[in-house]
Amino acid sequence: MDRRQEIMLAAEKSFTLFGYKATTMDQVAKIANVGKGTIYTFFSNKEELFHSIVWRMVKEMRDMAEEWIVEGASFEENAHAIIMQLLKFRETHQLYIKLIEEEKELRTPAVGEVLASIEQEILRFIQEKIERSIAKGELKPCNSKLVSYLLLKSYIALVVDWDRTHDEELPEEEITQLLSTTIFSSLAYKQI
Amino acid sequence: MDRRQEIMLAAEKSFTLFGYKATTMDQVAKIANVGKGTIYTFFSNKEELFHSIVWRMVKEMRDMAEEWIVEGASFEENAHAIIMQLLKFRETHQLYIKLIEEEKELRTPAVGEVLASIEQEILRFIQEKIERSIAKGELKPCNSKLVSYLLLKSYIALVVDWDRTHDEELPEEEITQLLSTTIFSSLAYKQI
Repeated sequence: MDRRQEIMLAAEKSFTLFGYKATTMDQVAKIANVGKGTIYTFFSNKEELFHSIVWRMVKEMRDMAEEWIVEGASFEENAHAIIMQLLKFRETHQLYIKLIEEEKELRTPAVGEVLASIEQEILRFIQEKIERSIAKGELKPCNSKLVSYLLLKSYIALVVDWDRTHDEELPEEEITQLLSTTIFSSLAYKQI
Repeated sequence: MDRRQEIMLAAEKSFTLFGYKATTMDQVAKIANVGKGTIYTFFSNKEELFHSIVWRMVKEMRDMAEEWIVEGASFEENAHAIIMQLLKFRETHQLYIKLIEEEKELRTPAVGEVLASIEQEILRFIQEKIERSIAKGELKPCNSKLVSYLLLKSYIALVVDWDRTHDEELPEEEITQLLSTTIFSSLAYKQI
Protein backbone atom coordinates (compact mmCIF):
# COMPACT_ATOMS: atom_id res chain seq x y z
CA MET A 1 0.00 0.00 0.00
CA ASP A 2 1.39 3.42 -0.89
CA ARG A 3 1.68 6.36 1.47
CA ARG A 4 -1.37 8.17 0.08
CA GLN A 5 -3.52 5.09 0.60
CA GLU A 6 -2.24 4.66 4.14
CA ILE A 7 -3.11 8.25 4.96
CA MET A 8 -6.58 7.91 3.49
CA LEU A 9 -7.18 4.73 5.45
CA ALA A 10 -6.07 6.44 8.66
CA ALA A 11 -8.23 9.46 7.95
CA GLU A 12 -11.28 7.30 7.24
CA LYS A 13 -10.68 5.55 10.55
CA SER A 14 -10.49 8.88 12.36
CA PHE A 15 -13.55 10.41 10.64
CA THR A 16 -15.51 7.23 11.40
CA LEU A 17 -14.52 7.18 15.07
CA PHE A 18 -14.54 10.87 15.95
CA GLY A 19 -16.44 12.53 13.14
CA TYR A 20 -15.28 15.30 10.84
CA LYS A 21 -15.19 18.13 13.32
CA ALA A 22 -13.17 16.33 15.99
CA THR A 23 -10.62 14.91 13.57
CA THR A 24 -7.30 16.78 13.32
CA MET A 25 -4.40 16.35 10.93
CA ASP A 26 -2.26 15.44 13.98
CA GLN A 27 -4.58 12.54 14.77
CA VAL A 28 -4.50 11.29 11.20
CA ALA A 29 -0.69 11.49 11.19
CA LYS A 30 -0.56 9.52 14.42
CA ILE A 31 -2.94 6.80 13.18
CA ALA A 32 -1.13 6.56 9.84
CA ASN A 33 2.20 6.56 11.64
CA VAL A 34 3.65 9.25 9.37
CA GLY A 35 4.83 12.78 10.01
CA LYS A 36 2.27 15.57 9.62
CA GLY A 37 4.43 17.02 6.85
CA THR A 38 3.95 13.86 4.81
CA ILE A 39 0.17 14.31 4.86
CA TYR A 40 0.51 17.84 3.53
CA THR A 41 2.44 16.60 0.53
CA PHE A 42 -0.75 14.77 -0.52
CA PHE A 43 -3.60 16.83 0.92
CA SER A 44 -3.49 20.55 1.48
CA ASN A 45 -5.98 20.48 4.40
CA LYS A 46 -8.49 18.42 6.35
CA GLU A 47 -11.32 19.39 4.03
CA GLU A 48 -9.50 18.09 0.96
CA LEU A 49 -8.69 14.84 2.74
CA PHE A 50 -12.33 14.50 3.75
CA HIS A 51 -13.57 15.10 0.22
CA SER A 52 -11.19 12.49 -1.18
CA ILE A 53 -12.51 9.90 1.23
CA VAL A 54 -16.16 10.73 0.68
CA TRP A 55 -15.59 10.77 -3.06
CA ARG A 56 -14.14 7.27 -2.89
CA MET A 57 -17.17 6.11 -0.89
CA VAL A 58 -19.52 7.58 -3.50
CA LYS A 59 -17.57 5.78 -6.23
CA GLU A 60 -17.94 2.54 -4.27
CA MET A 61 -21.71 3.11 -4.08
CA ARG A 62 -21.89 3.87 -7.78
CA ASP A 63 -19.91 0.75 -8.75
CA MET A 64 -22.07 -1.36 -6.47
CA ALA A 65 -25.23 0.11 -7.99
CA GLU A 66 -24.02 -0.52 -11.55
CA GLU A 67 -23.29 -4.10 -10.61
CA TRP A 68 -26.84 -4.51 -9.36
CA ILE A 69 -28.34 -3.62 -12.71
CA VAL A 70 -29.78 -6.69 -14.39
CA GLU A 71 -29.86 -6.36 -18.16
CA GLY A 72 -33.30 -7.30 -19.41
CA ALA A 73 -35.02 -6.55 -16.10
CA SER A 74 -37.62 -3.76 -16.06
CA PHE A 75 -36.84 -0.23 -14.91
CA GLU A 76 -38.98 -0.87 -11.85
CA GLU A 77 -37.12 -4.03 -10.86
CA ASN A 78 -33.70 -2.45 -11.27
CA ALA A 79 -34.66 0.82 -9.58
CA HIS A 80 -36.19 -1.01 -6.63
CA ALA A 81 -33.19 -3.29 -6.10
CA ILE A 82 -30.68 -0.48 -6.41
CA ILE A 83 -32.42 2.06 -4.19
CA MET A 84 -33.01 -0.55 -1.49
CA GLN A 85 -29.34 -1.46 -1.72
CA LEU A 86 -28.21 2.16 -1.46
CA LEU A 87 -30.38 2.69 1.60
CA LYS A 88 -28.88 -0.41 3.20
CA PHE A 89 -25.40 0.91 2.40
CA ARG A 90 -26.33 4.13 4.18
CA GLU A 91 -27.29 2.19 7.27
CA THR A 92 -24.35 -0.20 7.38
CA HIS A 93 -21.35 1.80 6.14
CA GLN A 94 -19.66 3.03 9.31
CA LEU A 95 -18.40 6.35 7.98
CA TYR A 96 -21.78 7.14 6.41
CA ILE A 97 -23.55 6.40 9.72
CA LYS A 98 -21.13 8.63 11.61
CA LEU A 99 -21.64 11.51 9.18
CA ILE A 100 -25.44 11.31 9.42
CA GLU A 101 -25.12 11.28 13.21
CA GLU A 102 -22.71 14.23 13.23
CA GLU A 103 -24.99 16.22 10.94
CA LYS A 104 -27.97 15.62 13.22
CA GLU A 105 -26.16 16.30 16.47
CA LEU A 106 -23.58 18.96 15.73
CA ARG A 107 -24.91 20.26 12.42
CA THR A 108 -21.36 20.68 11.17
CA PRO A 109 -21.83 22.63 7.91
CA ALA A 110 -19.02 20.79 6.06
CA VAL A 111 -20.73 17.49 6.83
CA GLY A 112 -24.16 18.77 5.81
CA GLU A 113 -22.76 19.87 2.46
CA VAL A 114 -21.09 16.55 1.86
CA LEU A 115 -24.25 14.59 2.70
CA ALA A 116 -26.24 16.82 0.35
CA SER A 117 -23.74 16.20 -2.42
CA ILE A 118 -23.93 12.42 -1.89
CA GLU A 119 -27.71 12.68 -2.26
CA GLN A 120 -27.19 14.71 -5.43
CA GLU A 121 -24.95 11.94 -6.79
CA ILE A 122 -27.58 9.30 -6.08
CA LEU A 123 -30.24 11.46 -7.71
CA ARG A 124 -28.08 11.99 -10.79
CA PHE A 125 -27.61 8.24 -11.04
CA ILE A 126 -31.37 7.53 -10.86
CA GLN A 127 -32.08 10.35 -13.31
CA GLU A 128 -29.59 8.87 -15.77
CA LYS A 129 -31.34 5.49 -15.57
CA ILE A 130 -34.76 7.09 -16.05
CA GLU A 131 -33.53 8.92 -19.13
CA ARG A 132 -32.02 5.75 -20.55
CA SER A 133 -35.33 3.93 -20.02
CA ILE A 134 -37.22 6.75 -21.72
CA ALA A 135 -34.81 6.57 -24.65
CA LYS A 136 -35.32 2.80 -24.85
CA GLY A 137 -39.10 3.34 -24.99
CA GLU A 138 -39.79 1.62 -21.68
CA LEU A 139 -40.83 4.72 -19.75
CA LYS A 140 -43.03 7.61 -20.86
CA PRO A 141 -41.26 10.97 -21.21
CA CYS A 142 -41.31 12.77 -17.84
CA ASN A 143 -39.43 15.37 -15.85
CA SER A 144 -36.63 12.94 -14.98
CA LYS A 145 -35.07 15.24 -12.41
CA LEU A 146 -38.25 15.62 -10.38
CA VAL A 147 -39.25 12.00 -10.79
CA SER A 148 -35.89 10.76 -9.49
CA TYR A 149 -36.29 13.09 -6.50
CA LEU A 150 -39.83 11.85 -5.82
CA LEU A 151 -38.72 8.25 -6.12
CA LEU A 152 -35.73 8.50 -3.79
CA LYS A 153 -37.66 10.51 -1.20
CA SER A 154 -40.52 8.01 -1.29
CA TYR A 155 -38.13 5.18 -0.57
CA ILE A 156 -36.49 7.12 2.25
CA ALA A 157 -39.93 7.83 3.73
CA LEU A 158 -41.03 4.19 3.53
CA VAL A 159 -37.76 2.52 4.50
CA VAL A 160 -36.05 4.97 6.86
CA ASP A 161 -38.69 7.37 8.26
CA TRP A 162 -41.45 4.79 8.73
CA ASP A 163 -39.37 3.07 11.41
CA ARG A 164 -39.14 6.19 13.50
CA THR A 165 -42.89 6.63 13.95
CA HIS A 166 -44.03 3.01 13.88
CA ASP A 167 -43.17 0.06 16.06
CA GLU A 168 -42.29 -2.21 13.18
CA GLU A 169 -40.57 -1.64 9.90
CA LEU A 170 -42.70 -1.81 6.78
CA PRO A 171 -42.25 -5.20 5.06
CA GLU A 172 -40.44 -4.93 1.76
CA GLU A 173 -43.34 -6.58 -0.11
CA GLU A 174 -45.64 -3.78 1.01
CA ILE A 175 -43.20 -1.14 -0.18
CA THR A 176 -42.83 -2.92 -3.52
CA GLN A 177 -46.60 -3.29 -3.88
CA LEU A 178 -47.35 0.34 -2.95
CA LEU A 179 -44.76 1.90 -5.27
CA SER A 180 -45.48 -0.56 -8.05
CA THR A 181 -49.15 0.43 -8.16
CA THR A 182 -48.51 4.16 -7.75
CA ILE A 183 -45.32 5.86 -8.95
CA PHE A 184 -43.87 3.04 -11.06
CA SER A 185 -47.14 2.21 -12.81
CA SER A 186 -47.53 5.85 -13.80
CA LEU A 187 -44.06 6.00 -15.35
CA ALA A 188 -44.12 2.94 -17.60
CA TYR A 189 -46.09 2.49 -20.78
CA LYS A 190 -49.03 0.21 -20.06
CA GLN A 191 -48.29 -3.36 -21.01
CA ILE A 192 -50.79 -4.84 -23.40
CA MET B 1 -62.29 35.06 28.86
CA ASP B 2 -62.37 32.46 31.64
CA ARG B 3 -59.44 31.49 33.84
CA ARG B 4 -58.72 28.24 31.98
CA GLN B 5 -58.52 30.10 28.69
CA GLU B 6 -56.22 32.73 30.17
CA ILE B 7 -53.89 30.05 31.45
CA MET B 8 -53.82 28.28 28.10
CA LEU B 9 -53.08 31.52 26.32
CA ALA B 10 -50.22 32.26 28.70
CA ALA B 11 -48.86 28.74 28.33
CA GLU B 12 -49.01 28.93 24.55
CA LYS B 13 -47.09 32.19 24.75
CA SER B 14 -44.45 30.60 26.96
CA PHE B 15 -44.10 27.41 24.88
CA THR B 16 -43.82 29.55 21.74
CA LEU B 17 -41.16 31.83 23.19
CA PHE B 18 -39.09 29.40 25.24
CA GLY B 19 -40.07 25.97 23.99
CA TYR B 20 -41.48 23.09 25.99
CA LYS B 21 -38.39 22.20 27.96
CA ALA B 22 -37.61 25.69 29.20
CA THR B 23 -41.19 26.49 30.18
CA THR B 24 -42.07 26.15 33.86
CA MET B 25 -45.42 26.35 35.64
CA ASP B 26 -44.05 29.39 37.49
CA GLN B 27 -43.49 31.19 34.21
CA VAL B 28 -46.96 30.36 32.98
CA ALA B 29 -48.44 31.61 36.26
CA LYS B 30 -46.50 34.85 35.94
CA ILE B 31 -47.55 35.45 32.32
CA ALA B 32 -51.18 34.57 33.11
CA ASN B 33 -51.02 36.72 36.21
CA VAL B 34 -52.54 34.01 38.40
CA GLY B 35 -51.20 32.01 41.34
CA LYS B 36 -49.49 28.74 40.57
CA GLY B 37 -52.17 26.97 42.62
CA THR B 38 -54.84 28.21 40.22
CA ILE B 39 -53.10 26.51 37.30
CA TYR B 40 -53.08 23.21 39.16
CA THR B 41 -56.84 23.35 39.61
CA PHE B 42 -57.09 23.05 35.80
CA PHE B 43 -53.99 21.13 34.75
CA SER B 44 -52.20 18.57 36.85
CA ASN B 45 -48.77 19.19 35.27
CA LYS B 46 -46.87 20.86 32.45
CA GLU B 47 -47.33 17.89 30.16
CA GLU B 48 -51.10 17.99 30.46
CA LEU B 49 -51.11 21.72 29.80
CA PHE B 50 -48.90 21.16 26.75
CA HIS B 51 -51.15 18.45 25.39
CA SER B 52 -54.25 20.62 25.78
CA ILE B 53 -52.63 23.39 23.79
CA VAL B 54 -51.32 21.13 21.05
CA TRP B 55 -54.67 19.38 20.88
CA ARG B 56 -56.38 22.73 20.33
CA MET B 57 -53.90 23.54 17.56
CA VAL B 58 -54.62 20.21 15.87
CA LYS B 59 -58.36 20.91 16.08
CA GLU B 60 -57.73 24.28 14.46
CA MET B 61 -55.85 22.57 11.63
CA ARG B 62 -58.60 20.01 11.18
CA ASP B 63 -61.36 22.65 11.06
CA MET B 64 -59.32 24.67 8.59
CA ALA B 65 -58.80 21.60 6.43
CA GLU B 66 -62.50 20.71 6.46
CA GLU B 67 -63.30 24.25 5.39
CA TRP B 68 -60.97 23.91 2.45
CA ILE B 69 -62.84 20.96 1.02
CA VAL B 70 -64.78 21.95 -2.06
CA GLU B 71 -67.78 19.71 -2.65
CA GLY B 72 -67.76 18.55 -6.24
CA ALA B 73 -64.03 19.05 -6.68
CA SER B 74 -61.92 15.96 -7.42
CA PHE B 75 -59.99 14.09 -4.74
CA GLU B 76 -56.79 15.38 -6.30
CA GLU B 77 -57.86 19.02 -6.19
CA ASN B 78 -59.02 18.82 -2.60
CA ALA B 79 -56.03 16.80 -1.40
CA HIS B 80 -53.60 19.17 -3.08
CA ALA B 81 -55.19 22.31 -1.66
CA ILE B 82 -55.46 20.88 1.84
CA ILE B 83 -51.97 19.42 2.11
CA MET B 84 -50.41 22.62 0.75
CA GLN B 85 -52.44 24.54 3.32
CA LEU B 86 -51.37 22.28 6.17
CA LEU B 87 -47.72 22.64 5.20
CA LYS B 88 -48.12 26.41 5.14
CA PHE B 89 -49.70 26.26 8.59
CA ARG B 90 -46.67 24.32 9.80
CA GLU B 91 -44.38 27.05 8.55
CA THR B 92 -46.33 30.04 9.79
CA HIS B 93 -47.85 28.94 13.10
CA GLN B 94 -45.42 30.24 15.72
CA LEU B 95 -45.85 27.41 18.24
CA TYR B 96 -45.51 24.77 15.54
CA ILE B 97 -42.30 26.38 14.27
CA LYS B 98 -40.87 26.49 17.78
CA LEU B 99 -41.66 22.83 18.40
CA ILE B 100 -40.01 21.70 15.17
CA GLU B 101 -36.96 23.78 16.10
CA GLU B 102 -36.85 22.40 19.64
CA GLU B 103 -37.13 18.83 18.33
CA LYS B 104 -34.22 19.39 15.96
CA GLU B 105 -31.97 21.17 18.40
CA LEU B 106 -32.69 19.69 21.81
CA ARG B 107 -34.47 16.49 20.76
CA THR B 108 -36.80 16.82 23.73
CA PRO B 109 -38.65 13.47 23.73
CA ALA B 110 -42.01 14.98 24.81
CA VAL B 111 -41.85 17.32 21.82
CA GLY B 112 -40.86 14.56 19.43
CA GLU B 113 -43.85 12.50 20.55
CA VAL B 114 -46.24 15.39 20.14
CA LEU B 115 -44.96 16.18 16.64
CA ALA B 116 -45.32 12.50 15.69
CA SER B 117 -48.89 12.48 16.95
CA ILE B 118 -49.73 15.62 14.96
CA GLU B 119 -48.41 13.86 11.86
CA GLN B 120 -50.56 10.84 12.75
CA GLU B 121 -53.61 13.11 12.95
CA ILE B 122 -52.90 14.59 9.52
CA LEU B 123 -52.40 11.10 8.11
CA ARG B 124 -55.67 9.89 9.61
CA PHE B 125 -57.43 12.85 8.04
CA ILE B 126 -56.01 12.13 4.57
CA GLN B 127 -56.75 8.42 4.97
CA GLU B 128 -60.38 9.22 5.83
CA LYS B 129 -60.72 11.31 2.67
CA ILE B 130 -59.13 8.57 0.55
CA GLU B 131 -61.57 6.02 1.94
CA ARG B 132 -64.52 8.30 1.31
CA SER B 133 -63.38 8.79 -2.27
CA ILE B 134 -63.02 5.04 -2.74
CA ALA B 135 -66.54 4.55 -1.36
CA LYS B 136 -67.85 7.19 -3.77
CA GLY B 137 -66.22 5.31 -6.64
CA GLU B 138 -63.80 8.11 -7.51
CA LEU B 139 -60.63 6.30 -6.44
CA LYS B 140 -59.62 2.69 -7.00
CA PRO B 141 -59.41 0.55 -3.86
CA CYS B 142 -55.92 0.85 -2.35
CA ASN B 143 -54.07 0.54 0.94
CA SER B 144 -55.35 3.89 2.18
CA LYS B 145 -53.01 3.99 5.15
CA LEU B 146 -49.87 3.57 3.05
CA VAL B 147 -51.12 5.82 0.28
CA SER B 148 -51.85 8.67 2.70
CA TYR B 149 -48.33 8.25 4.10
CA LEU B 150 -46.77 8.27 0.64
CA LEU B 151 -48.79 11.32 -0.35
CA LEU B 152 -47.96 13.41 2.71
CA LYS B 153 -44.28 12.47 2.62
CA SER B 154 -44.08 13.33 -1.07
CA TYR B 155 -45.50 16.77 -0.40
CA ILE B 156 -43.09 17.31 2.49
CA ALA B 157 -40.18 16.27 0.25
CA LEU B 158 -41.21 18.59 -2.57
CA VAL B 159 -42.35 21.58 -0.52
CA VAL B 160 -40.17 21.50 2.61
CA ASP B 161 -37.06 19.40 1.89
CA TRP B 162 -36.47 20.64 -1.67
CA ASP B 163 -35.71 24.12 -0.31
CA ARG B 164 -32.92 22.83 1.86
CA THR B 165 -30.85 21.38 -0.94
CA HIS B 166 -31.76 23.74 -3.79
CA ASP B 167 -31.35 27.46 -4.19
CA GLU B 168 -34.95 28.07 -5.14
CA GLU B 169 -38.20 26.55 -4.01
CA LEU B 170 -40.00 24.31 -6.44
CA PRO B 171 -42.85 26.24 -8.15
CA GLU B 172 -46.28 24.99 -7.09
CA GLU B 173 -47.25 24.25 -10.73
CA GLU B 174 -44.35 21.82 -11.01
CA ILE B 175 -45.39 20.04 -7.82
CA THR B 176 -48.98 19.85 -9.05
CA GLN B 177 -47.88 18.59 -12.45
CA LEU B 178 -45.49 15.97 -11.04
CA LEU B 179 -47.91 14.49 -8.51
CA SER B 180 -50.85 14.72 -10.89
CA THR B 181 -49.07 12.58 -13.47
CA THR B 182 -47.64 10.11 -10.95
CA ILE B 183 -49.33 9.32 -7.63
CA PHE B 184 -52.71 10.96 -8.25
CA SER B 185 -53.14 9.51 -11.74
CA SER B 186 -52.51 6.02 -10.37
CA LEU B 187 -55.18 6.39 -7.67
CA ALA B 188 -58.14 7.58 -9.71
CA TYR B 189 -60.16 5.58 -12.18
CA LYS B 190 -59.21 6.66 -15.67
CA GLN B 191 -61.61 9.23 -17.05
CA ILE B 192 -63.14 8.26 -20.35
